[in-house]
Order: sequence, then structure tokens, then C-alpha cells
Amino acid sequence: MILSDFESMWRDLLPLGRSAASGGYFRQPWTSPEREARAWFVAEAEARGLEVRRDGLGNLVAWWRPVGLDEATEAVLTGSHLDSVLDGGAYDGPLGVVSALAALDLLRSRGFEPDRPIGVGAFVEEEGSRFGIACLGSRLLTGATSWDQARELRDRDGVRLPDALAAEDLHGPGPGEGGLLDGVGCFVELHVEQGRDLVHRDVAVGVASAIWPHGRYRFDFAGEANHAGTTRMEDRRDPMLSYAMTALAANKQARTRGQRATFGRVDVRPNGTNAVPSHVTAWLDARAESGEELDALLTDVSRQAQERAERDGTSLKVTAESVSGEVRFDPDLAARIAAPGGWPVIPTMAGHDAGVLSASGIPTAMLFVRNPTGVSHSPAEHAETADCLAGVDALADTLALLAGGDR
Amino acid sequence: MILSDFESMWRDLLPLGRSAASGGYFRQPWTSPEREARAWFVAEAEARGLEVRRDGLGNLVAWWRPVGLDEATEAVLTGSHLDSVLDGGAYDGPLGVVSALAALDLLRSRGFEPDRPIGVGAFVEEEGSRFGIACLGSRLLTGATSWDQARELRDRDGVRLPDALAAEDLHGPGPGEGGLLDGVGCFVELHVEQGRDLVHRDVAVGVASAIWPHGRYRFDFAGEANHAGTTRMEDRRDPMLSYAMTALAANKQARTRGQRATFGRVDVRPNGTNAVPSHVTAWLDARAESGEELDALLTDVSRQAQERAERDGTSLKVTAESVSGEVRFDPDLAARIAAPGGWPVIPTMAGHDAGVLSASGIPTAMLFVRNPTGVSHSPAEHAETADCLAGVDALADTLALLAGGDR
Repeated sequence: MILSDFESMWRDLLPLGRSAASGGYFRQPWTSPEREARAWFVAEAEARGLEVRRDGLGNLVAWWRPVGLDEATEAVLTGSHLDSVLDGGAYDGPLGVVSALAALDLLRSRGFEPDRPIGVGAFVEEEGSRFGIACLGSRLLTGATSWDQARELRDRDGVRLPDALAAEDLHGPGPGEGGLLDGVGCFVELHVEQGRDLVHRDVAVGVASAIWPHGRYRFDFAGEANHAGTTRMEDRRDPMLSYAMTALAANKQARTRGQRATFGRVDVRPNGTNAVPSHVTAWLDARAESGEELDALLTDVSRQAQERAERDGTSLKVTAESVSGEVRFDPDLAARIAAPGGWPVIPTMAGHDAGVLSASGIPTAMLFVRNPTGVSHSPAEHAETADCLAGVDALADTLALLAGGDR
Repeated sequence: MILSDFESMWRDLLPLGRSAASGGYFRQPWTSPEREARAWFVAEAEARGLEVRRDGLGNLVAWWRPVGLDEATEAVLTGSHLDSVLDGGAYDGPLGVVSALAALDLLRSRGFEPDRPIGVGAFVEEEGSRFGIACLGSRLLTGATSWDQARELRDRDGVRLPDALAAEDLHGPGPGEGGLLDGVGCFVELHVEQGRDLVHRDVAVGVASAIWPHGRYRFDFAGEANHAGTTRMEDRRDPMLSYAMTALAANKQARTRGQRATFGRVDVRPNGTNAVPSHVTAWLDARAESGEELDALLTDVSRQAQERAERDGTSLKVTAESVSGEVRFDPDLAARIAAPGGWPVIPTMAGHDAGVLSASGIPTAMLFVRNPTGVSHSPAEHAETADCLAGVDALADTLALLAGGDR
């Protein structure tokens, strides 16, 4: 029964925002495919008799609130997100939402009666693929990012966040709308693993210990546009060269330190074949085990970039677009969740809404489901159905543990 | 009088396609600003009583064909182009068209009566900024590029060339439409210099000896998209690194050989901050003194790129999008033109419609006008008005020389 619930939900969700060319997903927030995914969520929740609440950003929580529970009873929240990176995989986000609904089905099929309300959430713009700030929905909900900052954000087409929301009949966060998390006593997010730790340990499920600190930094290199044929090499001020050396330097720095540094996004102006560019803007995604190590990584990459820019006659400006400190999930909660199944407790280098909720003071845990290749943020991202069902089972047990009542 | 003719034409043309943000020009072919520029040309030609002919691509020639000239008399053609690179300068192209019309005005004000018809041409898509092939208008006109090849071209938005033409009520080259060049006995193009040779020689005007061979090559690097946080550096197949090393290698190769190599255009997929890219496509613009040297440059850069791709676990495909061999302009013609004014005869590294017409067998010459900074393909491109007027004067003398009759 759980298999058929899980598989039917998965089948309904699979076509939304899928590129026929690559097989990857384009579920950018407040666009048509992501709107359909949110509508799918509301329909599934309502079919289960859950009470759906939403805010002015499009964040959703569907509540299983058994009659007779004291209003003041602390609730248990689970869930994840439905948006994707550009050309992303099927599992990153949706697996946590589908598994949460399937876990409720499983608990009910077992006759479980919770002592606490259980909510299933779907947070918007977790990937930051449109407005550049990861976990924007949960950040606005918890106040980690203020609306005053967020309302100035623009997407790649220059559309402001409030206008993107208005086009979806969303009005932004209203006064006192943090309410979507009111009464939440703990949060647990299930997510596909984005590495191969569980493969090496030969287990289907793991529990998160911590999230590495993570920064996104914009590198603006400015030079001088010129003719690609007539301008002597030694007369150029070519920002492409400054950028190229920086991309190689960042890779080398991270490789030798066991950290992560990626230049995955580049915008070139004017981006013409026969013109030396005037501007190259590139985004560094960097992660390290501690905030100090992250700072040191950025400092070293920036210094090398600056030195090269001076040699190239270009200029460099580095802007931190978002920096998240280390998240240490509640160790007692992780231990309690991991103990019954004997699951390993492991760190992750990926950011999640769970990290934002944890930082806001809500005791938080994460479950990971094995990813055979470790590939993520790619059409090739995958998890075996048997592992996904083991994840549903683990999440159901975890919710039962947290929401009390009969198992 | 010539000053006022020149300046009034220049003033009318200046606002078309100009970016308020950069001050540069966006006159991509078969778009609104370029359509306006062609309409401006037709209006100026008709105001002078010239007979305007056009073809199904938008190429234009305005004829001064004095009554009584034998139909078989070989004609003299001048002119240049009106399109620009992305965010280009005001002078590259339009200076040759405006100067041609001003030179006709000057000849008429002198009472000159030509023995041969004189045409002023404006060729489309000289820069290749939209469909990737430089001098596309003159190439189709001379048969250097066939319509069978060109009809498959697509712009960055995926629009096919025939559809871009149809949107402008142009039907592509009709049968026997090469006619726009029928009867042309020689061609002379005036152009702003795109370097500082004339500055060093302290003269306002020069004559071209040759155009360096020029190739545009697409480098497709393919790797594997993956999560920027969780994927260990040593587990990646990141095409950005292969590209970055190639951009630096191309620069170094060209610098040490006194040649030109530029990566000015890059497309990254999926181009997201938190994803290792799956594909990086970059375009190499390369120029060298001889075809053999150009081949050797490409071979060396490709080999270094291939070696790096192997180390990165990525793959590389190199495609030649357009390669133009060396153009040696008619040396007798250049000497005849240069002699009266004592102008220097110099090579250029920039491609021009004049090169395409020369390669098709039409005796061709070029005049250059001094560029104080040498900057071109940039909003900063400039020429002093006094030098532009010296260019008009030189072009008028050249046309008088070539079209015979009284000076």
C-alpha cells in the first residue's frame, strides 16, 4: 500500500517542469512548473483531509491535527521543498515532501494516533535558483532574511521579488505572518543524500549531524571592451583572463584543503565572439568545515584574483551574496532518531531549510536517503525505490517517536 | 558645407540602437535599431536622387548613375555596413557609409561628372553578432557562403535566419539576386582604424595592404553536473576548469607569437551558482599573419585544451564556425590610391566586407581613418571629426580617380 501511495505521488510529480531535452528539472519558484507542483501538494493534502495553511510567499504547511489535542500542544513539522536548481534532479526536495505524505499514510495505516499535531511543509525558493539566496522561503519565515532586504532582490531578467510574487497572486509576508511556524516544537527533513557517504557505509538511511558553513560570493571583474582582432595582446585589459585564473585558483585551494569551491555561473558582457569583454561576473560557491576555514578560503582566492587582476589591468570587486554559518543539529535529537535503526550520524556540505529552522532555535533533525552515484543538482540524480521506501519507513518511525502516542 | 552634411548625417544616426546605460550600440541585424538605420540610409540616398536597389537579405546599394553612361560601363562601389557588435562603437561601419554619401556630396559640389556609375553600399550582418558568421551579407551576395548553409543558422534565441528575415519582410536571396553586385568593377571601403598604426605614423588616413587570416572556433566542453557543496573536488568532471585553462593558454600562445586569440563569448549550462556545470561552450577568435600560422595556433590551443580535458575527466569538441584566409588587396590599386596623398599602406587584423569582395575577384581597396585610442568594438571607440573629414576628402579623391571624369 505504501509502495503504491509513494509511487503514484511520484508519478504525478515527475512530469512537472521536466526538460525533454536533458531529462532535468526547471522548477524555478513562482513560475508555471513550480506553481503546478504547489497545486499538486495542496490537492494531495486535501485528499488526506489535512488542513492546508499558506503564507504570502507560497510557503505551505498541511496539518494533521487530531480532534481533542490541546491548542497549546507543540507540533511536529516535517517536509522539504518542491523547487529545483536549473536543470536539476527529481529527488532533491520533492523526495522529502512525497516521503512526508507517504509517512503519514503509513502511520495512519498502522492505526497510529499522535499526541501532537504533525505538519508537512513545502518551503519556496530553497535552491535560490531565481533570486540568488538559498532557502529564501524559510529565511523570510524565520526572519533570517528580512523582507526589507528581500524586496530589493531581482531575478536574471530584472524582475523584482514583489513583482514575481504579485504575478502569482502572492502579496509577500503580511504582518504577523511568521504564523506558519507558530507552535512548531521540532522539525525533521528527509532528503536524498548528495554524496556517497551512505554508499560507503552500505546503509539506506542516515541522520545528519551538521551542515558545513556555506557562502556565495559575486566576483565582478571589469576591464575594457576592445576589438578581438586588432588589439595587441599586451594592450588589453581582459577580465576573462582574470576570471579564468581565479576559477583555477579556487579549485586548487579547495582541493588541497579538502573543502569545496565552485564557479558554476558566469555572465560575460558583451559576450560577443569578436570583442574582448568589458565585464565578467562570476559566482563562487564555497564551503568549509568551519566558519574560520571558509573565511580563510575566500581570503586566499580573493587575494589571488586581485593579484591577477592587477597584472591584467582589470579591477575586481567581491560581494558576499549569502553566507550561512555552521549548523549543528540537536545532537540529542539525532541520537534518539538514529538509535532504533542503528543509522549513522553524518555531516553534510549541502544547505537545507532544516539548517535555517535549526538556526532559528527549533530543534531540528535530518534524514538522508542513499544516493547510489552521489550525483545531485543534475538530471542524473537518483535513488532506488527500495531505499526511498526505507526512508519513508524511517521518517514514519521518527514522526511517531516525536509526536508520541501509540506506534 | 561638407562638414554640415557629414555632421547632420552623423547626428541623425547616433541615437539609433544606442544603450543609455553604456553609451554603446546594439544594432543587431534584422532588429528594430538596424531596420531604422537601413531606413535612414534609403531616405538619405533618395534625398540625393540616388537609385536604391536592395536584395532579399536587406543589403542595399544606392546608385549615382549619370544619364548617358553606357549600360556596360563598369561601376565603382563604395560603402560599408550599419550593424554593430553587441555594445559596439559608433564608427565601426557607419563611418564608411556616412563618408561615402558625404564624398558624393563633395564630388558634386566640385562639379565632378563621373565616367562610371558610383554606388554606395550597406551590407547586412557584417559583424556576425547575431548569426555567428562575419560578413554574412556580403558572403551570401558573392557566394562565399551558400544559402543552403545559411538557412540553417540560428541566433542565440533559436530563431532561424529565414524566420528572422521573414519578420522583416525579407525573403532571402531570390534566384539570380547576386545582381546587386552586377557590373561592379571595383570596391573601396572606408573604415575607422581598429588599432593605433596611424597614430604612430602621425597621419589621418591610410590604405590597406591585407587582412590577416581569421577563424572563429567553437569549443564545446562537456562534463557532469553535480552539487557544488557535496561533490568532492576530486570526484568532479568540471568543464569550467577545462575552459578556464584553455582561455589562459590561448592568451599565452598568441602573446608569445605576436598573434591574436580571444575568448570573448561563453555559455555555461546550467549556469547555476550551486551546481558544477555540465557544459561550457566558448568561442575562440583567432588571427595570425598567415593561414599556416593560424592553423598552428589553433592546433596548439586545441592540444592544450584536450590535455586539460583529459585531466578533468571532461570531453572537448572543437568546431570551426568560420575561417577566412588571408586577403591581399590589389597592390596596384592600393599604390595608385595612396600615392597622391602619400598615405601609408598598412595591414589590418580585422575582417571586412572588402575582404569578401576582394576574395570574390573584385579589385578592392580600403581606406582607414585614424583612431586616437585604437579602441574598437566598444562604446569608447572614437575618431576626431577633423580626421573623419580628411577621410571623406580622401574617399572623394579615390572615387574620382576610379570613376574617371573631371575632378
